[in-house]
Amino acid sequence: MQIPQPYLLFLGDVTDPLSAKTAKGILQWRPKMCTGQLRLTQETVSLGITDLSLAEARERGAQTLVIGTANAGGFIPQSWLAALQEAIELGFNIASGMHQRLSGFPALSNAANIHGCQLYDVRHYDQPLIVGTGKPRQGKRLLTVGTDCSVGKMYTSLALEKEMNRQGLKAQFRSTGQTGILISGTGIAVDAVVADFISGAAEAISPDFTDHDWDIIEGQGSLLNPSFAGVSLGLLHGSQPDALVLCHEVGRAHIRHLPHMSVPSIESTLEANCTAAKLTNPNAKFVGICLNTSAIDESDALALCRQWELQYKLPVSDPVRFGVSTIVDKLHSI
Amino acid sequence: MQIPQPYLLFLGDVTDPLSAKTAKGILQWRPKMCTGQLRLTQETVSLGITDLSLAEARERGAQTLVIGTANAGGFIPQSWLAALQEAIELGFNIASGMHQRLSGFPALSNAANIHGCQLYDVRHYDQPLIVGTGKPRQGKRLLTVGTDCSVGKMYTSLALEKEMNRQGLKAQFRSTGQTGILISGTGIAVDAVVADFISGAAEAISPDFTDHDWDIIEGQGSLLNPSFAGVSLGLLHGSQPDALVLCHEVGRAHIRHLPHMSVPSIESTLEANCTAAKLTNPNAKFVGICLNTSAIDESDALALCRQWELQYKLPVSDPVRFGVSTIVDKLHSI
Repeated sequence: MQIPQPYLLFLGDVTDPLSAKTAKGILQWRPKMCTGQLRLTQETVSLGITDLSLAEARERGAQTLVIGTANAGGFIPQSWLAALQEAIELGFNIASGMHQRLSGFPALSNAANIHGCQLYDVRHYDQPLIVGTGKPRQGKRLLTVGTDCSVGKMYTSLALEKEMNRQGLKAQFRSTGQTGILISGTGIAVDAVVADFISGAAEAISPDFTDHDWDIIEGQGSLLNPSFAGVSLGLLHGSQPDALVLCHEVGRAHIRHLPHMSVPSIESTLEANCTAAKLTNPNAKFVGICLNTSAIDESDALALCRQWELQYKLPVSDPVRFGVSTIVDKLHSI
Repeated sequence: MQIPQPYLLFLGDVTDPLSAKTAKGILQWRPKMCTGQLRLTQETVSLGITDLSLAEARERGAQTLVIGTANAGGFIPQSWLAALQEAIELGFNIASGMHQRLSGFPALSNAANIHGCQLYDVRHYDQPLIVGTGKPRQGKRLLTVGTDCSVGKMYTSLALEKEMNRQGLKAQFRSTGQTGILISGTGIAVDAVVADFISGAAEAISPDFTDHDWDIIEGQGSLLNPSFAGVSLGLLHGSQPDALVLCHEVGRAHIRHLPHMSVPSIESTLEANCTAAKLTNPNAKFVGICLNTSAIDESDALALCRQWELQYKLPVSDPVRFGVSTIVDKLHSI
């Protein structure tokens, strides 16, 4: 699957800036892929880029209308259907990371058939997969892992890809979740595959390669999160990473959504991941730690990074505040 | 889901005794649930129980026709459809552990609707689940784990259930795979759920209970099998076992289907499982090791069990040859 680019970013009628997180991520990491934004009302949040009608965006070459918003249930509001249908009639493909499937609306599905357009429901995965084998593959791989969900694994992966390419290491981001898939235009939502195929999906996401230096694979969940650890372990085995980067949010009080579960220690998370990774890559090792330090001020954050560098003997940084160059420096010798 | 019992065991037209493994398992562990067998030809393998026509089985109270055979593709042969349809018309439910769904045949699906019968495709799971939480639940749980797939986890679980009930510990087998589900009439095939819900499925399989002493949960795969470890870890976290039993096949040359992967050591398997289990149950511990010693003769098997008992400081037995009483002895004090 490769979602045709460039995109027109669809913001619907959402007024809460947080709801436009997906569109912001696409614009931040792939600005050249975005022709503009489509807002259904004057009150809709803006990304600060050109407002385009569907017809104008098509004239500028837009191939896919990407739903760039999120809501609690992951549903597609009725109020969007007319615009989505019109987009299909103008030749757009549509891509969505919502739980509710575009293809579940007969009107959209029929229109897509008639006009030869694709509907990409990237949160779901219905293609055939094979089970993982753990066989060594060509190419070097880096996987981001975490002390929990939502600690910055996708952001870190994309920041690493950008900095590696800046430093002359040819890197490709490999996405495993819906936002990452919309950003890169390809990937598999590994938490949505049938359980038997988690590591197989990871192997399919990053197959043998010799045309670049590194695949940067977006991690999911955490080995020490009792809700999602199975996904994380299958992804770790299937990724067979040469390098691991640990992501952590400073100050998180407990595992997300589980007040009875404390966040695991850095030590235990490093050890659990390193031990498990060696099953499919005996050379797997950590090359850095990325912190989300937004809960503390910048000087405290810097001091914490320096202190943890001594403690864990790894480069430690906040990718938003301080970048990831110290981690990438270490990758040239792997 | 509770598949109505008793069963009529359907053997179709298979002539290879190994293909009737599912039916044999049901008959071995739940003989009182089996009214008889239905064979389509004279050459079909026999379980050595009464041959019954569909009508005769209904007269004896059979509620469900269970497909008791397996084939490489997990498909339902055309040559069975007439018999399956006739069964539905006589009021049978049908249960199958095949990959191909009974409900995928419009003729069967329509007949089931008309006659108010259920089609149980136990290898698939389409019901809503919630994600696991790791919250402690009432009741004691034992989980079987393995050095690999197909090392006797289901057999060991059923042998433990039987021996525990014999020793006065009220135990219930909780199945997580298609054969186990057909034997017990309920359960979830955890390798068939969406990856995000593995531990949630395990929590649903063995919810809070106070009406008996132990749930014996059938393990799947292995934490050290690169194809299926994600399933095993989610199942381990969701089961939150108080007791673990390790299953191992003596003499297995390599991980099943993966000649490049060696079978992990007993030590590393014990450690990986014990460490991971403590995330949701800090008191988790191993209480025994069950070996499939069919590759060696009985005196060597006995000597090996005695030697490993000293080495691992746990009861060690082959459940087929020597039973599991020494392991169950240890459960009275937990």
